Amino acid sequence: MKFLMLVLDGLGDRPDKRGRTPLEAAKTPNMDSLAREGMTGLVDPIRPGIVPGSDTAHISLLGFNPYEVYMGRGPYEALGAGLTLKEGDLCFRTNFATLESRTNKIEDRRAGRISGNLSELEKAINDIKLPCNFEFKQTVDHRGVLVLRGKKFSDQITSTDPHKTEVPIRKCNSLDKSKESVSSASIVNKFSDLAQKALEECKLNAERKRDKLPPANALLLRGAGVYHENSTVEDAYGIRGSCVAGTAIVKGVAKSMGLEIINVPGATGGADTDIKCKLDFALKTLETRDFCLINIKATDNFSHDGNFKGKTEMIEKIDAKLGGIVRETNKNLVVAILGDHTTPCSLKAHSGDPVPLVIKGPTTRVDLSRGFDEKNCMQGGVGRIRGTDLLLILMNLAGKEKLYGA
Amino acid sequence: MKFLMLVLDGLGDRPDKRGRTPLEAAKTPNMDSLAREGMTGLVDPIRPGIVPGSDTAHISLLGFNPYEVYMGRGPYEALGAGLTLKEGDLCFRTNFATLESRTNKIEDRRAGRISGNLSELEKAINDIKLPCNFEFKQTVDHRGVLVLRGKKFSDQITSTDPHKTEVPIRKCNSLDKSKESVSSASIVNKFSDLAQKALEECKLNAERKRDKLPPANALLLRGAGVYHENSTVEDAYGIRGSCVAGTAIVKGVAKSMGLEIINVPGATGGADTDIKCKLDFALKTLETRDFCLINIKATDNFSHDGNFKGKTEMIEKIDAKLGGIVRETNKNLVVAILGDHTTPCSLKAHSGDPVPLVIKGPTTRVDLSRGFDEKNCMQGGVGRIRGTDLLLILMNLAGKEKLYGA
Repeated sequence: MKFLMLVLDGLGDRPDKRGRTPLEAAKTPNMDSLAREGMTGLVDPIRPGIVPGSDTAHISLLGFNPYEVYMGRGPYEALGAGLTLKEGDLCFRTNFATLESRTNKIEDRRAGRISGNLSELEKAINDIKLPCNFEFKQTVDHRGVLVLRGKKFSDQITSTDPHKTEVPIRKCNSLDKSKESVSSASIVNKFSDLAQKALEECKLNAERKRDKLPPANALLLRGAGVYHENSTVEDAYGIRGSCVAGTAIVKGVAKSMGLEIINVPGATGGADTDIKCKLDFALKTLETRDFCLINIKATDNFSHDGNFKGKTEMIEKIDAKLGGIVRETNKNLVVAILGDHTTPCSLKAHSGDPVPLVIKGPTTRVDLSRGFDEKNCMQGGVGRIRGTDLLLILMNLAGKEKLYGA
Repeated sequence: MKFLMLVLDGLGDRPDKRGRTPLEAAKTPNMDSLAREGMTGLVDPIRPGIVPGSDTAHISLLGFNPYEVYMGRGPYEALGAGLTLKEGDLCFRTNFATLESRTNKIEDRRAGRISGNLSELEKAINDIKLPCNFEFKQTVDHRGVLVLRGKKFSDQITSTDPHKTEVPIRKCNSLDKSKESVSSASIVNKFSDLAQKALEECKLNAERKRDKLPPANALLLRGAGVYHENSTVEDAYGIRGSCVAGTAIVKGVAKSMGLEIINVPGATGGADTDIKCKLDFALKTLETRDFCLINIKATDNFSHDGNFKGKTEMIEKIDAKLGGIVRETNKNLVVAILGDHTTPCSLKAHSGDPVPLVIKGPTTRVDLSRGFDEKNCMQGGVGRIRGTDLLLILMNLAGKEKLYGA
């Protein structure tokens, strides 16, 4: 038997003025049937009240304690972007940004959400001479990742991204007095200056200025993290998994834990993602793997926009594609559907509320749940569990747990 | 006030094709009345998803973390068989087995479930000359225990029991390169050879061959464990307990934690066990003890045989004897009835699903449970707790917990 962990990003919510959450408002016949024929519950992704990021939440759901293994966002973004990392690499998320040339202040943190072929900018950055090796990769639009290599680095340093406009790029400062932190900050500042110079000279930026578009004449760095090799899900639990996800961060977390990343055509991380294709690829990968983690990001995007209706409709759109999965749960598949964290539309940000969970397979007990939503889950037979418990629970139901004792 | 922990071995189950578990199918008026007048819940004996053995589960239920104290099966079997152990003793479970004399391959792992007076075989083994002290005790039928003494031993060694027939006895190998492991393996191999020679010469085996019965001409060893003295329940919790059980393993766990083992006439570990007598002895022992752990094994035996009807009837048989206990719970007794692990009849093996629990005494709150079964327990007011929590919960209800703080 195999199992599927279907994570609807930011799924959990709080009631709106009419007293309903998006999951309560949505018509979800497939998820409701899983709840009626299986069992529901609540998951605290990390621990009650803690507000999880998508990265720390997925670490928990894959059975590891984020307080022990979390490396900061940079390494996960870099892994998710397809880079190969080595022990000790210092990684960042990056943004192309626009500096106002006279004042040297940030005019646009995303360089007008620059898109298209940016290989000239990427090459210009990679041609910089630094006192260490490095690799820069532009990923989607203004976004990218930077990896510094070959020296002793520390991530106890500040971002160069001030997270606001009309201020200069921040100097990178060390957060402690160690040699590594001081020299890491110094290299980052050197990189930041040289990146600005290199980008100023790119033809693409001259063209953008001519076309009255904000030039990508600076690179903002944030999410510093030193990469450390993590023990994999296979090392720790003896099972082999795969991951279908649209976002780099989830792919990166999954990759850091040894899951095979399945690239699915049409998986965008947005509302236009090809849900059916993601689910089909996930089921396919189970032919050779014990489990698959699927992440659908769009529910979280709507939450961050405070778009209750959009989130509700996205949930309905996902539900409509679950018929095949529901059928498989009568045969050889255990499925769990849950959020990685709660993102209340009213808050437009993650919260520490527990997330709804439904589990159904041929081996599951049946509780009294009448549907899949926060209210039912609060009464559900799984009770209230921790994120790190879920993998073991699913392994047990899929017959992948070994006897401990005699 | 005193308390009773009544463990129905392997009680938890999963729904059959008709959607019912044995506990749901069974008519259990006494347990149901405890549930209606007390409260129910679910217990993860070790942690969610982990598949407990009876030994590791009982360690948890007695308030200890098995990951810290579990010694492997051998020492518990030896203690349960009545042997006195010393720090460092290397213990095994043993089986008399039949070797085919020409090929030296195992023909029967249980020597035709040999029974009767086997003292000649026991003596022959104990007369072997080994480079260390040892003690062998035949227990029930083909089963026994072996304890090696007086040297530095290691349990990082393999079994000689291949767990199948038509193969030779396995050589014992060390699992690491330590001196202790290598020398332990070497002594075990020497013992295994000498035991075979000694048994070959027993008159009983000549008689069995003549009667066309499989001779007990070899001894298979498994479950190696080095005995370490454990801190007792009394040391850790300040209360004194007793144990009524039919099986050596549960007795051994209880003994390793300082419980007094009450030997009850007619306690067999089988379906024919004298339930009434076990319960009467347990209540009697409470006159001088704070609590008693009772284990009834037969529910698990039926589960391992996949016998849903047998398990259901055994539950009903046990329930029928609980009238006296139910009455006591209105006076000075708190009782908890639960499984030590789930053994689904559909699986014929232990699983990591949580186990049903009911608690009732004159001090307990009352939840909305209508009866004692998995469905009610999933909604129960105790919620979902860990095995190690139970002892403290019962101590509290029986007024045996002291104020922590002020």
